[in-house]
Amino acid sequence: MLDVRHAAVNDRRLDALLLWHEVEQFNAAYAAALDEQRLFDWVEMFTEDASYNNLSRENADNGLPVGLIYCESKNMLHDRAYALQNTAMFAPRYLRHIIGNLQILSEEVNGEFKARANYVVMQVLFDRPSATLHQVGVYYDVFRRVDGVLKLAQRRCVYDNLLVDNALCIPV
Amino acid sequence: MLDVRHAAVNDRRLDALLLWHEVEQFNAAYAAALDEQRLFDWVEMFTEDASYNNLSRENADNGLPVGLIYCESKNMLHDRAYALQNTAMFAPRYLRHIIGNLQILSEEVNGEFKARANYVVMQVLFDRPSATLHQVGVYYDVFRRVDGVLKLAQRRCVYDNLLVDNALCIPV
Amino acid sequence: MLDVRHAAVNDRRLDALLLWHEVEQFNAAYAAALDEQRLFDWVEMFTEDASYNNLSRENADNGLPVGLIYCESKNMLHDRAYALQNTAMFAPRYLRHIIGNLQILSEEVNGEFKARANYVVMQVLFDRPSATLHQVGVYYDVFRRVDGVLKLAQRRCVYDNLLVDNALCIPV
Repeated sequence: MLDVRHAAVNDRRLDALLLWHEVEQFNAAYAAALDEQRLFDWVEMFTEDASYNNLSRENADNGLPVGLIYCESKNMLHDRAYALQNTAMFAPRYLRHIIGNLQILSEEVNGEFKARANYVVMQVLFDRPSATLHQVGVYYDVFRRVDGVLKLAQRRCVYDNLLVDNALCIPV
Repeated sequence: MLDVRHAAVNDRRLDALLLWHEVEQFNAAYAAALDEQRLFDWVEMFTEDASYNNLSRENADNGLPVGLIYCESKNMLHDRAYALQNTAMFAPRYLRHIIGNLQILSEEVNGEFKARANYVVMQVLFDRPSATLHQVGVYYDVFRRVDGVLKLAQRRCVYDNLLVDNALCIPV
Repeated sequence: MLDVRHAAVNDRRLDALLLWHEVEQFNAAYAAALDEQRLFDWVEMFTEDASYNNLSRENADNGLPVGLIYCESKNMLHDRAYALQNTAMFAPRYLRHIIGNLQILSEEVNGEFKARANYVVMQVLFDRPSATLHQVGVYYDVFRRVDGVLKLAQRRCVYDNLLVDNALCIPV
């Protein structure tokens, strides 16, 4: 009886760990898409009705929705990606994400669950030789399984910086 | 026979992985408590007899115990948290942790084991728009299971920086 | 039948997770060896015929092999380690790695597989009090199991920075 209970506990822990790992791998692929400027691959990581925004910690703490980017559907994300790919401003920089401290915040119900992770985006501008901290903050996420594939139904990127230098429209 | 041995090896690897994940999740919660300035939640992550200190790599390498913070019990940590919550110096900044490279360094014996992880704490001061590297270093830890819950019996935060700018007393 | 299939799927996911964790622990040990300047321990993490190089993203994107470091065997890595240990330039700095976003990119075939991870190396120079971003980039790896032990058969460290300040020859 104890053995059965022990096995059941371990199974629950294992299930939680496998889900954590799945999201961790999602975030690694998400970062790689942005770091390699594959913006249309990035768009495909969201659900059709996804919301994505990028706002300051100050606004988030005060319940103000205004931010650098505010998209209410995958179509809007696609427009954003298209605009960036065709903008001279976008090319001359490198971005590099480190995503860490991932936490799954709720049970998976009907294929949906909440998560959060800390992120750092480092940037190299082509007129400055060294890397700088571009954005530092938290992802507050809602994930949803669509036909077995994990997608973001919501990602709020809340950054600590007071200002984000000359790259207002680049997703993180 | 081979199958049984294979299964046993996998079980050991799985147990090690589950413990690693448990500590990784502990560290994510630890970072969130500090990043969100929930200092009393942070205090609860330590055992009653916990030691916590924050000292330079130079002093650590030379066996010198003097550091920015030196606490020898949970009560001392509580006093520290209380003082910070009531200090005007504390509020006007944001901190953000990334904790990575976690290693479990010993077997769990009587619910106690050693671990280490690298950490980066980034800071945004309210009179400077960009994030800076506040502290970079290593956590050297002793964890202990108390009533089934993981707590820190010891955390030594050894930082590489030669100076830590104007925030001497903030825990990391 | 379904249960058996479910178990098989979970076994595959678990095997993938265990391999991921093994590489993640390899990278943590790799980082610790370099951060603690145990360069000969670092050399032992490579196969006899290993290639190791450290080159800029610009050169990597353009298929140019020239970089800061180019080693084509473990012997060359050993020479590099020996030279650094006996060079006055090396000592007066601290390095600290954060390795994240690890992805296993191929199945293990004959004990060999590909992986990648993002890295940040922070540096403290002894004449500057604060930590700086020394190198930011990606490890593109080929791992090989030698007598059951994981080794690097190839590590290409591709950095985003346009310049790497006064530490040309230090491995990351």
